[in-house]
Amino acid sequence: MTTAVHPLDKEDPLAHKRAAFHIPANTIYFDGNSLGLMAPSVHERVNQALRHEWGDDVITSWNKHGWIDLPLTVGDKIGRLIGAPEGQTICCDSTSINLFKVLCAALQINSDRSEILSTTDNFPTDLYMVQGIEQWLGERCKLRLVSEDSLLNEINENTAVVLVTEVNFRTGRRLPMAHISQRAKQCGALTVVDLAHSAGALPVDVVANEIDFAVGCTYKYFNAGPGAPAFLYAAERHLKQQRQPLHPLYGWLGHAAPFAFEVNYAPADGIRQFLTGTPPVLSLVAVDAALDLFADVTMSDIRTKSIGLSSYWLECMDKHGLLDVMPCISPVVADERGSQLAFQHAEAYAICQALIAEGVIADFRAPEYLRIGFAPLYNSYAEVESAVSRLAVIMQEKRYLNAEFQQRSKVT
Amino acid sequence: MTTAVHPLDKEDPLAHKRAAFHIPANTIYFDGNSLGLMAPSVHERVNQALRHEWGDDVITSWNKHGWIDLPLTVGDKIGRLIGAPEGQTICCDSTSINLFKVLCAALQINSDRSEILSTTDNFPTDLYMVQGIEQWLGERCKLRLVSEDSLLNEINENTAVVLVTEVNFRTGRRLPMAHISQRAKQCGALTVVDLAHSAGALPVDVVANEIDFAVGCTYKYFNAGPGAPAFLYAAERHLKQQRQPLHPLYGWLGHAAPFAFEVNYAPADGIRQFLTGTPPVLSLVAVDAALDLFADVTMSDIRTKSIGLSSYWLECMDKHGLLDVMPCISPVVADERGSQLAFQHAEAYAICQALIAEGVIADFRAPEYLRIGFAPLYNSYAEVESAVSRLAVIMQEKRYLNAEFQQRSKVT
Repeated sequence: MTTAVHPLDKEDPLAHKRAAFHIPANTIYFDGNSLGLMAPSVHERVNQALRHEWGDDVITSWNKHGWIDLPLTVGDKIGRLIGAPEGQTICCDSTSINLFKVLCAALQINSDRSEILSTTDNFPTDLYMVQGIEQWLGERCKLRLVSEDSLLNEINENTAVVLVTEVNFRTGRRLPMAHISQRAKQCGALTVVDLAHSAGALPVDVVANEIDFAVGCTYKYFNAGPGAPAFLYAAERHLKQQRQPLHPLYGWLGHAAPFAFEVNYAPADGIRQFLTGTPPVLSLVAVDAALDLFADVTMSDIRTKSIGLSSYWLECMDKHGLLDVMPCISPVVADERGSQLAFQHAEAYAICQALIAEGVIADFRAPEYLRIGFAPLYNSYAEVESAVSRLAVIMQEKRYLNAEFQQRSKVT
Repeated sequence: MTTAVHPLDKEDPLAHKRAAFHIPANTIYFDGNSLGLMAPSVHERVNQALRHEWGDDVITSWNKHGWIDLPLTVGDKIGRLIGAPEGQTICCDSTSINLFKVLCAALQINSDRSEILSTTDNFPTDLYMVQGIEQWLGERCKLRLVSEDSLLNEINENTAVVLVTEVNFRTGRRLPMAHISQRAKQCGALTVVDLAHSAGALPVDVVANEIDFAVGCTYKYFNAGPGAPAFLYAAERHLKQQRQPLHPLYGWLGHAAPFAFEVNYAPADGIRQFLTGTPPVLSLVAVDAALDLFADVTMSDIRTKSIGLSSYWLECMDKHGLLDVMPCISPVVADERGSQLAFQHAEAYAICQALIAEGVIADFRAPEYLRIGFAPLYNSYAEVESAVSRLAVIMQEKRYLNAEFQQRSKVT
């Protein structure tokens, strides 16, 4: 876009990482919180799996290329980025399914209580999974929803599980995990944390925060590709406790001896007991390769740049006088937000479409929010400046009133 | 291997399909019942999804390239091969997870009964999934296991669900679905059928057989790649019945309006209500492309060739005097078996390893079976002749006694 390097990019210790990604032509991509960009190294790894592993070695690859252990080896790579010791994180299934497993586990461990406490503004699928359990288990599970502001005070001695997404998918608000977890511990409640908007975007420490169970997705800040398998973390103290299987999804890969083909289920030791069916290997090797891009960076550097990018975005918006027109609903204190910003406007959907037409990819969240995601591995300060300039033109010219931008697509 | 074309291959109307697959060098592959071979067209399609869809169009691909509808469009392609009308089959999750969903649905529809009747020799993950439900639902679900021979007679007025895998994964025995389904209907029981070893291998007609629910995998005879997403079929009569959601896995993509981000779950109409989380797109496009290889063939031709290959295998074994040494435990009547043969021998594991060392890929199933899968789209009669010759040498020389072939791998 610009010939001179932006001064902020010059000082960015992560600036070199951008070259590891395929940046789509004529595109400024601020939607890494929805789907991260593809890295050619990921493409190459999937190709390798297709051509040599599946193509040439076919079934023998389960042993020869370690396919059978991929959920655990990939899980451990994720574990290192969320503060988990080895052997406590797996990569498999979807976030929804993994959430079901850990919620059932937590309910079983705390079986003298039935309340799952969460926030009304949690990501819907998280609440839906609880509602499903509620309907099927009857009195053994009861969802109670409270506001984010009151969550800390609402945790009490009746709470079996506190279910929380660390970073709000809409507002980007980051909830105080240390406090929530501490309060939960005091009350004898377990914590189940959705790290979908945290993992890969900011430092997470499941051990220091004494998180009991966590789940999250790999297709956002981990850049592992559309619908890539999700992850699941369980604290070691729960993996040892095994009077009966921790969750009802007794799939064969979670069995203690999957290839003995025994009639009765017996859960594997450790984190493997959370595996279910055969994992989608092509999607799983993409996660494996995508995680390697984090090998030479620190989550602290990522967080610093994330805050740098979002703060600069706000600064540019302010300079263009846009913050009055479309107020920011994300926390103004950088430490209290994740790696995104959300702006409110009645025409947010059309504004987002007009931005896309200008080559700036952001996304819309119902009912009226424009969401900007910052991916520190590939976004630049120059992109921020350029994107906000384009947004300013759109707002000034009221382009969002054009009929073409008003038409809703299936996926918004 | 041979320069002259085998006379049986000359007459094979499916012989040309072999060219659509990547045949690994120096390999005779008889394990398509475990993992089908890769077709270059599948490789190309995944590459396309990587480079152009994810790589260039990133998030916009959910609309632009129809990612959001892939579970249904791919599902319909599968539906056409199992006799399902449009809109009743989806492709998503694993077979295990899909089984959980349909078992819960069937139990709910038949909620005045609790018995799930199945066979002791069913594929273990199928039984495990029931055991998981049993443990969690208590008295609302009770698994009863009977022998394959007695199944038909054991279905009675207490049976809520008959859970059956059409083709036994070990013996290759094909159970009489029409009779089982008819008997189930008479008794007011619902049928849940695992088509893992049927779909793509033999004609299936879920409508003619009045199957209530079916699941199956795509990485065997559909050649869609390791761990590729599974499928789920539900009869239309059950899709209309919606007093409450049919299963407890309330994922956001099964919601009536996933992008409205509502707090409360409300299931989508039709088959979409069986979707859960975000599907692994790279693995799903592989299924999509793999199914296209069935566009110009009939399941009847596939069945004819399947029987041709297995019968010829038995004939060759007989010629080499091998059937006395390692008896065939699969039905001798071709119509009563699926697309595989299994042979019993105390050293079956080592024999399988010795075969692999000779370039013949088959597999072993505990405790002592050598399993040979026939994939009519790419296997040839010449391969059968050659593979059995090599097996004869191995047996004659007792090569299976070599220490190297005795050592067990993780995946067998």
